[in-house]
Amino acid sequence: MDFSSDNAWGVVPEIMAAIESANSGTAASYGNDAWTERLGKAFSDLFERDVAVFPVFTGTAANSIALACATAPWGAIYCHPESHIHIDECGAPEFYSGAKLLPIEGPAGKFSAASLEAAQINWGDRGVHSVRPMSVSITQATEAGTLYSLAEVEAISEVAKKYKLALHMDGARFANAVSALGCTPAELTWKRGVDLLSFGATKNGALAAEAIVVFTPRLVEGLEYRRKRAGHLSSKMRFVSAQLLAYLEDALWLRLAERANARAKRLAEGLQRLGVVPAYPVEANEIFVWLSMADMDALNAKGARLWPWTNVVQGGKVMTRMVTSFATPEKDIDAFLSELKKLAGK
Amino acid sequence: MDFSSDNAWGVVPEIMAAIESANSGTAASYGNDAWTERLGKAFSDLFERDVAVFPVFTGTAANSIALACATAPWGAIYCHPESHIHIDECGAPEFYSGAKLLPIEGPAGKFSAASLEAAQINWGDRGVHSVRPMSVSITQATEAGTLYSLAEVEAISEVAKKYKLALHMDGARFANAVSALGCTPAELTWKRGVDLLSFGATKNGALAAEAIVVFTPRLVEGLEYRRKRAGHLSSKMRFVSAQLLAYLEDALWLRLAERANARAKRLAEGLQRLGVVPAYPVEANEIFVWLSMADMDALNAKGARLWPWTNVVQGGKVMTRMVTSFATPEKDIDAFLSELKKLAGK
Amino acid sequence: MDFSSDNAWGVVPEIMAAIESANSGTAASYGNDAWTERLGKAFSDLFERDVAVFPVFTGTAANSIALACATAPWGAIYCHPESHIHIDECGAPEFYSGAKLLPIEGPAGKFSAASLEAAQINWGDRGVHSVRPMSVSITQATEAGTLYSLAEVEAISEVAKKYKLALHMDGARFANAVSALGCTPAELTWKRGVDLLSFGATKNGALAAEAIVVFTPRLVEGLEYRRKRAGHLSSKMRFVSAQLLAYLEDALWLRLAERANARAKRLAEGLQRLGVVPAYPVEANEIFVWLSMADMDALNAKGARLWPWTNVVQGGKVMTRMVTSFATPEKDIDAFLSELKKLAGK
Amino acid sequence: MDFSSDNAWGVVPEIMAAIESANSGTAASYGNDAWTERLGKAFSDLFERDVAVFPVFTGTAANSIALACATAPWGAIYCHPESHIHIDECGAPEFYSGAKLLPIEGPAGKFSAASLEAAQINWGDRGVHSVRPMSVSITQATEAGTLYSLAEVEAISEVAKKYKLALHMDGARFANAVSALGCTPAELTWKRGVDLLSFGATKNGALAAEAIVVFTPRLVEGLEYRRKRAGHLSSKMRFVSAQLLAYLEDALWLRLAERANARAKRLAEGLQRLGVVPAYPVEANEIFVWLSMADMDALNAKGARLWPWTNVVQGGKVMTRMVTSFATPEKDIDAFLSELKKLAGK
Repeated sequence: MDFSSDNAWGVVPEIMAAIESANSGTAASYGNDAWTERLGKAFSDLFERDVAVFPVFTGTAANSIALACATAPWGAIYCHPESHIHIDECGAPEFYSGAKLLPIEGPAGKFSAASLEAAQINWGDRGVHSVRPMSVSITQATEAGTLYSLAEVEAISEVAKKYKLALHMDGARFANAVSALGCTPAELTWKRGVDLLSFGATKNGALAAEAIVVFTPRLVEGLEYRRKRAGHLSSKMRFVSAQLLAYLEDALWLRLAERANARAKRLAEGLQRLGVVPAYPVEANEIFVWLSMADMDALNAKGARLWPWTNVVQGGKVMTRMVTSFATPEKDIDAFLSELKKLAGK
Repeated sequence: MDFSSDNAWGVVPEIMAAIESANSGTAASYGNDAWTERLGKAFSDLFERDVAVFPVFTGTAANSIALACATAPWGAIYCHPESHIHIDECGAPEFYSGAKLLPIEGPAGKFSAASLEAAQINWGDRGVHSVRPMSVSITQATEAGTLYSLAEVEAISEVAKKYKLALHMDGARFANAVSALGCTPAELTWKRGVDLLSFGATKNGALAAEAIVVFTPRLVEGLEYRRKRAGHLSSKMRFVSAQLLAYLEDALWLRLAERANARAKRLAEGLQRLGVVPAYPVEANEIFVWLSMADMDALNAKGARLWPWTNVVQGGKVMTRMVTSFATPEKDIDAFLSELKKLAGK
Repeated sequence: MDFSSDNAWGVVPEIMAAIESANSGTAASYGNDAWTERLGKAFSDLFERDVAVFPVFTGTAANSIALACATAPWGAIYCHPESHIHIDECGAPEFYSGAKLLPIEGPAGKFSAASLEAAQINWGDRGVHSVRPMSVSITQATEAGTLYSLAEVEAISEVAKKYKLALHMDGARFANAVSALGCTPAELTWKRGVDLLSFGATKNGALAAEAIVVFTPRLVEGLEYRRKRAGHLSSKMRFVSAQLLAYLEDALWLRLAERANARAKRLAEGLQRLGVVPAYPVEANEIFVWLSMADMDALNAKGARLWPWTNVVQGGKVMTRMVTSFATPEKDIDAFLSELKKLAGK
Repeated sequence: MDFSSDNAWGVVPEIMAAIESANSGTAASYGNDAWTERLGKAFSDLFERDVAVFPVFTGTAANSIALACATAPWGAIYCHPESHIHIDECGAPEFYSGAKLLPIEGPAGKFSAASLEAAQINWGDRGVHSVRPMSVSITQATEAGTLYSLAEVEAISEVAKKYKLALHMDGARFANAVSALGCTPAELTWKRGVDLLSFGATKNGALAAEAIVVFTPRLVEGLEYRRKRAGHLSSKMRFVSAQLLAYLEDALWLRLAERANARAKRLAEGLQRLGVVPAYPVEANEIFVWLSMADMDALNAKGARLWPWTNVVQGGKVMTRMVTSFATPEKDIDAFLSELKKLAGK
């Protein structure tokens, strides 16, 4: 009954097999190997156009390097106040870019195009006295487990273009988003004006592999230098690239995400039947619910791993996060719901 | 006949097995797992005292984070002009620390305690007009494939202590050094006054795993924050820690290094028999020799992977580097020597 | 009728005379001169205890260097969303410190001790995943022309101490605050737990001279190096120090501030008589009022220099800022009010 | 008998008068004043073409901001090992740019075009593993009191252009160089391929005023933001700009430098008559001589201010630096020589 994080789960067999398979003979180091060479085509196929792709070990590195390419040290990055880059990466985007993050409020982990425009009107033309907004980062799926619709991405993109802001998408759970929206990767990204994407694989079955995908060629400048000087150019890169190749092969990435999303749906529906209404729409693989500490403790005693997501207490309850993965067993969901039902005395 | 780099070789079976073995069930993310928990004891046993240990993905990250903990932004780091941190990490130590690197010359990849003292006399007391030296970094084994003797480390350490400089050891090839010197890890590090160690595993058979080992507790301050904001805190850390645990188990790390060193010796002796005298003493697993471009091309045509190590041409020859690993076959060495012999018309 | 800024006014005669007087013979450069030497005693006398004092050219430099001494790169600085360090210094505090600014809302340019505690409860214990709050910066007088009472400073200080946060005061208008509160400099700072002060002089009659005053000795570490590498150690420092000495002599600084505050009061009272109610309490030398663009244009046509302070429009009006200085003529105030009266058709 | 530094001398009357003259009425702050507006034309006239000019308070700021505009964080800056940016600014260029400084040796404070090319061949094409050289900084007059000839500047410039390196000139003593070379400012800078100039005034009679002059328009990008976030945008900028205007007016800057250079010549000739041969050619206003500590102490006892310039002792002597300024009295020179003569027992 581990719903603590998709990161709590290991590596899917297909990817583990790819790592093993790559472990044969010698290969040129630092990305000059055959696996890494194949990445360009694999990702260009996936996105239906030429893209530049750069593997790194973690999503924090992917986000930070991408944003640093899009934002000068005296620049600013718009983001949601609950975004990973703002509260969960210990200032990594600032460390890599030197820029400032400007949070834009909005419900359920999302901000609107109108809010972006309002923020820009406030920050955009102060001259040298303020940092100059240069990029926007949206998370898809969001940290609240919700989704930006294609139309919402497009609307944000239009404001970004209007003000010459680069548009970055934190796709740590990109697969869950694409699967849930039923669109193509292209439709969710460059066709909507996304300039850079952090393409996540680790949360969805890889060991440690993320890719920075750049759609707007001029933003590639310096990227490889930034990756190297951050220590994210793997000497045995073939093992990172092999993960990404296996992840894309036969749409494994989408099948895994589909499973994770289905599990979340099953869990959410069960919760609602028990009167536990998720705080946000359950659109990907994350569920946020309000529970009393007593219930949380009781569930943990039965084998769950829950904890308060924030320090906010409302009506005696705290919010907790539940995440499903490609490997979450249906029986764990059912067992959890059964325990919750007992608690509710129903 | 691939002598291009120890990084060109893959993952040893024991470490691959450990990765697979760790891939079972769920585990808390970001290092709160059972494998990472065991690292503390494993490394403390190895070093015969309590140490703090922090896994990261790459040697560049290990070096840079360690040095940033030991050196303020207005500080300076003494190092050899051919050290990895100075010329092969694209300014990563400067990026992480903000500090300046001050190279100290010396033959065969090493500088002496006397040269360190001379540098300090030059740089040490300029007040606020110059950066303030705060740390010293030595590489063991060096980038020239040589070793600092225990006495040499101690002499450097004494100068460092005299001037209150922290002593860092870049141990990307620490195993090769310990094996060659026939000392204990403790004798080569904290017993000689080393404050921080970048303990390498990747070049010697791991997939992507290095450890920052801190002997001087006050230098740990902020280290975990620095690692996180650099994107080097793995979400599925168990797979990094499992590599390190397997690497240490049953002295695997030393057995691998012993093999690599032995292969280098075999190659070096063969070269010398053919009149090709290494540029530096062959004390670990690297050999540097001067070859004509014609010979280099001919050998590459036969399956070698050689290239000029620097742009310097001397007497019509360029220097090339040959590295042996735990997996370099003896037959490759013999085949290479045989080709070289043919070239020499002997 | 220039109420655009206190910075629009020049240098008071006493300080200009001090600059001229310092221009005699040679003096050791970079702060090793007799004027700079006297600063320590002058400021220690002013604050009734030993303090460390470091002159710089600008308030941005003073704030940024002070905050960098109190906040690690992985740290965070609490501040008001309208504070100068957050919106008017182009990211200087982030540039100098590497840290993140966390704005805390509050009316009239101030946040409360309770809001600080709430922010800390939110941010304080997220482990390495978030930046670690390390300092608090309050502005006195605030950017809204209001004042923190001694009790309010003390309450904020208590929360800061509870959570081991350093307390910085941006005193760009420190003189106006001390004068208005009728307290001593000591009472407003270290006696209330302030650790570092940016002591402003430029806005109040100096040419270009601010002082970083440090009450908590451990925070001095590295300060002089930070100042030097930012280019804020004047080679002919005597001319900066001479300004500060003249500013303190015979309480010139307080007399100038008293005059500026009195002018603001006169202007505010006049405005209120005409039905123009300041948006915030007028407690120092700044007045914020809502005017229609038509009125603003008409007043500017008569010689005023007014412009919208933000892009917000409310009820057809925009906010404008009016600042009085030590040199603002009473006749300018009366003339301005007269014009405004004509506009109002009264 | 103060030959310690040109910074030891104060402000020339013409510049002090200009500061006083600017102290009248109100002026828009942060550089939007009439004085600053006139700078553009004044400098464009001086350089016989359109230039962009940005006043700052110090030479360290001028150098660092200029170099940051020309060099990415993963870039490198070639400079002389004794250059001010390398050893006398406490890492300011690295702080502002993030880049690495690569010193190029050469006698008498200068490096040659051939040495630059050799350095580039060594550093230029290492791919992402090394920082990428992006700029070259030469000092004119050098830190050794010598000059690059026009032909030498041109030769360096040609190598720079060949490798797409921006060329920066640290002109802290630009006036002394122009005066000594008898050329025009244009001939020494952009006509020889210089892209950015730190135009010094402080050492030559200003209070605190330097100008960044940019000849290559694309390098201006971000410059004003960098200046602001470093705290070098003066709120009362008119007083900085007024210094620069007065400095240029009626060729004051050249007349002052001519005087300083003539004084140095007088001193150097006197020294040589006494058998004290300067270590480097005396081509501007600095003289370096080897003296015994006993002689130095004796001269200091008579009112001189001499100290060892480095920690090097050669044949019982240390090197000391003597600098003349626009205000060094001839009688001080003669008195000093007279004391030295007595010491020599001649």
